[in-house]
Amino acid sequence: MKILLPDTVDLDPELPEGWEAVVVDAREEIPAEHHDAEVLVVWGASRRHLASAAEHLSGLRCIQSLSAGVDGILAAGFAPEVAIATGAGLHSLTVSEHALALLLSLVRRLPECREAQKRHEWSSELGGLQPLRPEGRLTTLLGARVLIWGFGQIGQTLAPTLQALGAEVRGAARSAGTRAGIEVIAEETVPSALPEVDVLINILPATEQTAGIVGREVLAALPDHALLVNVGRGATVDQTALREALEAGALGGAAIDVTDPEPLPREDPLWDAPGLLITPHAAGGRPVGADERITRNLRALVEGEELLHVAAR
Amino acid sequence: MKILLPDTVDLDPELPEGWEAVVVDAREEIPAEHHDAEVLVVWGASRRHLASAAEHLSGLRCIQSLSAGVDGILAAGFAPEVAIATGAGLHSLTVSEHALALLLSLVRRLPECREAQKRHEWSSELGGLQPLRPEGRLTTLLGARVLIWGFGQIGQTLAPTLQALGAEVRGAARSAGTRAGIEVIAEETVPSALPEVDVLINILPATEQTAGIVGREVLAALPDHALLVNVGRGATVDQTALREALEAGALGGAAIDVTDPEPLPREDPLWDAPGLLITPHAAGGRPVGADERITRNLRALVEGEELLHVAAR
Ligand SMILES: NC(=O)c1ccc[n+]([C@@H]2O[C@H](COP(=O)([O-])OP(=O)(O)OC[C@H]3O[C@@H](n4cnc5c(N)ncnc54)[C@H](OP(=O)(O)O)[C@@H]3O)[C@@H](O)[C@H]2O)c1
Ligand SMILES: NC(=O)c1ccc[n+]([C@@H]2O[C@H](COP(=O)([O-])OP(=O)(O)OC[C@H]3O[C@@H](n4cnc5c(N)ncnc54)[C@H](OP(=O)(O)O)[C@@H]3O)[C@@H](O)[C@H]2O)c1
Repeated sequence: MKILLPDTVDLDPELPEGWEAVVVDAREEIPAEHHDAEVLVVWGASRRHLASAAEHLSGLRCIQSLSAGVDGILAAGFAPEVAIATGAGLHSLTVSEHALALLLSLVRRLPECREAQKRHEWSSELGGLQPLRPEGRLTTLLGARVLIWGFGQIGQTLAPTLQALGAEVRGAARSAGTRAGIEVIAEETVPSALPEVDVLINILPATEQTAGIVGREVLAALPDHALLVNVGRGATVDQTALREALEAGALGGAAIDVTDPEPLPREDPLWDAPGLLITPHAAGGRPVGADERITRNLRALVEGEELLHVAAR
Repeated sequence: MKILLPDTVDLDPELPEGWEAVVVDAREEIPAEHHDAEVLVVWGASRRHLASAAEHLSGLRCIQSLSAGVDGILAAGFAPEVAIATGAGLHSLTVSEHALALLLSLVRRLPECREAQKRHEWSSELGGLQPLRPEGRLTTLLGARVLIWGFGQIGQTLAPTLQALGAEVRGAARSAGTRAGIEVIAEETVPSALPEVDVLINILPATEQTAGIVGREVLAALPDHALLVNVGRGATVDQTALREALEAGALGGAAIDVTDPEPLPREDPLWDAPGLLITPHAAGGRPVGADERITRNLRALVEGEELLHVAAR
């Protein structure tokens, strides 16, 4: 029995007896001698790679993706009996770390500090004695009211760290309730909650419902000192509205790891929006715990047990 | 009975019966009508202010400082029976937040991202698919080996957050042991520990023993990918050695909130050291919990109980 591993990431899963692992080029078609593979691990695969797998791996039983999103795999036309397991959770630690980095950079005004440094300027406006809660500006997470919109795996990983730093954290998702000990409000109540939000962290997936959901109205409802962080998907933000809010001083600052489209075109005016920090989809991109996940699901497959995080087809 | 509060910070402590609070200009001499004060709260005081207090407040029983360091007060010549209580702990939350901001900014390469952004460049070198542990560079705190040198109030506040982010944290202080559940090594063993350190966080006070302690040898002993953060005191770092290590690529990056002297002179070559982020003593500067500390120590004074954090004289 054979499992194909992508060459885009170093992997070393434990194999059940009788299994062999083969590393294949994730950008290319699957070589004929590996058309007998029963499991395919997907990470950074090209469309061509997936199409050739769908066409030729006639004994394929399971695809283990290392990304949370499996749209590309679903679109490749695999037979319905092939189980597709997502990489849900493998990016929670890295993406929440990046979200925290972006947020703290805004709160502690590190881009402004860097500019002052370039001018060889020890800015007393950025340091020295200062009020804990200056009028019209957020300068610490202590007591900051944070709303995490899209409160799934990543949001629930991030929330306790923000709480430990003294923030008051709530989540927003499709239904209200308490998750991982944190109050979660339903999407419908988000607009009325926004005026009391100091930090909005967007970790929404791109869906029909979330397209442009952080738009003119949401940005206008936030206080002028509020900070926005987006580590979800670029399509969830109306980028023109974001730029205009920043230009108008109607937002305290923003940091986004995702844009629409990606890469952001060179001529896009968003690059120069004031108070905006852009990182090039750098939050995740490196599954954590991939070997354990592959090992676990391969064992489940062999023993006829349930796979973790199977995508609905 | 009278307590004098500085005008440099908003304060509203609870007063015991019969006490009155008066706000005075912390930069100026104490007005004659307040020479009867029994308690003086100090924050951002000028030398002149302290000298006039030492000379004229003949009924003074206690000074409550809101800074951790009380060198200036000790030097002002107060009578030996005046108790001097430090503001130890009032800056732990803010300084540890800043240390985390600086560290995550280095780890997530936010200054480089900002430069790429200015060039309208979606850098695939900074984002996209990437190894979790690239050769010669630290890009996540997950599994990073962190040493906090100066493991007092601030270090012990910072450590659990770093652990929650997946780092392996140890402290270094004048004596070895376990503090707040974290292994602390003694200063003598620091040199031999450095080759196994990915992140060195300096939170040392400036003393005769710590002057220039992070010098050529310490920097050379760290791996080339190691990151240095300093939120303690500038005098603990040999700034020429730091600049040369960065220029030589013998250090992965550094971020410092403190320099020697402060402000850093415009012509100092440190401003332009590669991979260095300088913030202008912006970590603390805003005591947290000052009212509670003043209230607590004032009550203790009135009831003849022990004051919290009295400085040795
Ligand atoms: N920047 C990066 O490098 C990077 C890396 C990995 C992932 N991501 C992005 O992060 C997203 C979240 O990842 P995750 O692992 O946390 O996903 P997840 O566990 O599936 O959580 C998604 C959350 O979004 C909520 N949500 C979905 N559709 C919604 C809608 N229409 N309205 C309101 N809430 C909605 C869900 O609500 P319910 O709980 O009510 O269903 C859930 O709370 C991914 O979809 C991906 O786009 C980015
Ligand atoms: N950047 C800012 O805005 C800012 C704000 C506030 C404070 N600070 C700085 O941060 C420093 C630490 O504050 P803190 O509240 O954490 O102080 P702390 O509780 O007094 O802790 C100081 C730590 O440094 C250690 N230490 C002192 N002298 C040492 C030496 N010669 N060798 C090795 N270790 C030594 C102490 O070791 P032992 O435990 O063994 O005694 C202790 O662990 C302050 O002194 C101040 O300089 C900076």
